[in-house]
Amino acid sequence: MVKLKPVMAFVAAAWLATPALAQPLPSPVTPPLAPRDVPARSIPVPTTVSPQLQLIIAAPLRPGWNTPPTTPEGWKQLAETTRATALPNVNAMRDRLKVTVEAGTIDGVRVYTVTPEKIAAGNENRLLVQIHGGCYVLNPAEAALPEAMLIAAIGGYKVIAVDYRMPPEAYFPAALDDAMTVYKAAIKMQAPGRVGLIGTSAGGALVLEMGLRAKLENLPMVGAIASGTPMSDSTKTGDSFQTNAMLDNVLVSTEGFCDAAAAFYAKGHPLADPLISPVYGDMSGFPPTILTSGTRDLLLSNTVRVHRKLRNLGIDSFLQVYEGQSHAYYGRDDRIPETQEAFKEIALFFNTRLAK
Amino acid sequence: MVKLKPVMAFVAAAWLATPALAQPLPSPVTPPLAPRDVPARSIPVPTTVSPQLQLIIAAPLRPGWNTPPTTPEGWKQLAETTRATALPNVNAMRDRLKVTVEAGTIDGVRVYTVTPEKIAAGNENRLLVQIHGGCYVLNPAEAALPEAMLIAAIGGYKVIAVDYRMPPEAYFPAALDDAMTVYKAAIKMQAPGRVGLIGTSAGGALVLEMGLRAKLENLPMVGAIASGTPMSDSTKTGDSFQTNAMLDNVLVSTEGFCDAAAAFYAKGHPLADPLISPVYGDMSGFPPTILTSGTRDLLLSNTVRVHRKLRNLGIDSFLQVYEGQSHAYYGRDDRIPETQEAFKEIALFFNTRLAK
Repeated sequence: MVKLKPVMAFVAAAWLATPALAQPLPSPVTPPLAPRDVPARSIPVPTTVSPQLQLIIAAPLRPGWNTPPTTPEGWKQLAETTRATALPNVNAMRDRLKVTVEAGTIDGVRVYTVTPEKIAAGNENRLLVQIHGGCYVLNPAEAALPEAMLIAAIGGYKVIAVDYRMPPEAYFPAALDDAMTVYKAAIKMQAPGRVGLIGTSAGGALVLEMGLRAKLENLPMVGAIASGTPMSDSTKTGDSFQTNAMLDNVLVSTEGFCDAAAAFYAKGHPLADPLISPVYGDMSGFPPTILTSGTRDLLLSNTVRVHRKLRNLGIDSFLQVYEGQSHAYYGRDDRIPETQEAFKEIALFFNTRLAK
Repeated sequence: MVKLKPVMAFVAAAWLATPALAQPLPSPVTPPLAPRDVPARSIPVPTTVSPQLQLIIAAPLRPGWNTPPTTPEGWKQLAETTRATALPNVNAMRDRLKVTVEAGTIDGVRVYTVTPEKIAAGNENRLLVQIHGGCYVLNPAEAALPEAMLIAAIGGYKVIAVDYRMPPEAYFPAALDDAMTVYKAAIKMQAPGRVGLIGTSAGGALVLEMGLRAKLENLPMVGAIASGTPMSDSTKTGDSFQTNAMLDNVLVSTEGFCDAAAAFYAKGHPLADPLISPVYGDMSGFPPTILTSGTRDLLLSNTVRVHRKLRNLGIDSFLQVYEGQSHAYYGRDDRIPETQEAFKEIALFFNTRLAK
């Protein structure tokens, strides 16, 4: 700290005078660098979002966020609970969105084919593969479907939703293996440039991992990727893990259920492996990619770091960040105006990037 | 609150089970909605940014952030101090960036013409107008120049930097009037489609206000706008005003110098006027617009709200958000890698949107 003090005094003196621009830049020095001490705060629900979203923001922290299961059976039971609780909502959303859902398998992998009432003009030969979220462990079966139904209905796309194997049935890299099985099938059903990948949270990471894996396997790249608030860094690295902790009422903190679930999935495999933390992967050659996050999202940094990485590789990548939203709010319910907005952006991105 | 409780219990029960998607959506109810209580935290400097940026993040809150001047003379003196402190840094940056700076006037408005060592191919007939930041009151004269020099050098553009009148010399709408004088001159020097506007903070708001004012005056629209972390809402509305308070070490809080400065500039004029808070304006017909912010930026919400507004109007608008950055870090010093990155994006946006 002794070495640091004069530098800090220098910076402080400059800031007193010049609030915005043209600050002197101190030479890099060795850490430790001072943390920011932020006092306790009571943060109101913003008025700058829809009434529907205000209610979601006002909800308390997810109960049980810091008491994840500790046994494989406990995780399995929680996953089954997510399925049971989701089912009536999924069915209601399916009816409202007028999509058809058909269960099946593709080369042994469980999938749902989701078809909208009407395929949009131009999308007749296009196909989306959707990979659900849930920290690699939750949201099995029908609970996997909301995002697939939203993009099918709002975008007018045929979608294959992958109900990949999850722990304790199978561990890393089973989820990715299953996703790749469907990837390979999809690029035979349609030309690769006509295929898009879409996923949120763990699914947002998996669609990026699929891009990395496709390169490793010398497979053709798909035409576009939609990665929503991706778990792109499971090593708990990234500023918003700290800055949005206790503010994001879905994931809440890195000390919560989601990081525990990712570790359960990895089963001792290094979390920094790009096939678990894709922000560390080589994304050169990636197709156009749209990224979605929110200002309160615990994974905002995970999202913008991927965006910057893609942009620095010269890749067509579009970032959308929603006011006041915690992790994956936008995929929650079709009756939230911001959900319609987010999925219209994603649909437009696919419309303008996928081959016809 | 009695009415709210069952709804909240409903939401809470659903969240226990389904962490990510397919939550039941409660019907909108009347506020009050519960705030989020966030405990005090000590937030480390992120390791996910350059060493140069880590030092900036580690700097303490801007000294004097909550003791703004209370008299016109006090503001004038602070503005002069920002100028004096900035001058050596501006001169050093000018030398490093090899730009030429020439002071002059355009129809009575003080300007600097900033010329790079080499105009980039394709930019020979393009022209940028830069509007500096400083909460409408600070950064007069040479202190206005860093952003103009950065985009001139990194983008290879000729830039006119506007040293607009500020309080106590003149109050709202003098800054905008001066900017519009240069706007009108610029679209005579080059075809409007070849002209771009660029500004940060108050300057980021002013370039949006110029778009609104151009519509009011039936002037041709310019070809593109770069608005950095705009003061798009001076009514203190927007979630990140709360969520990033005390975390952003530049603006720190809405109870700080910048909102006091904006009120000083407005001199009693309603702060919700779109010509002071452009997020409330009608942006239909706006040209392509790039927006820049950071995850710790007090104006992150101000930025993403403008982005969403433009996108919902179908306008080509690109958002870039930088990891760990507080307000306007990216315009600070050319030796910060993230500054190069941000201005390369802005330059590329102008390159691909302005007419040749």
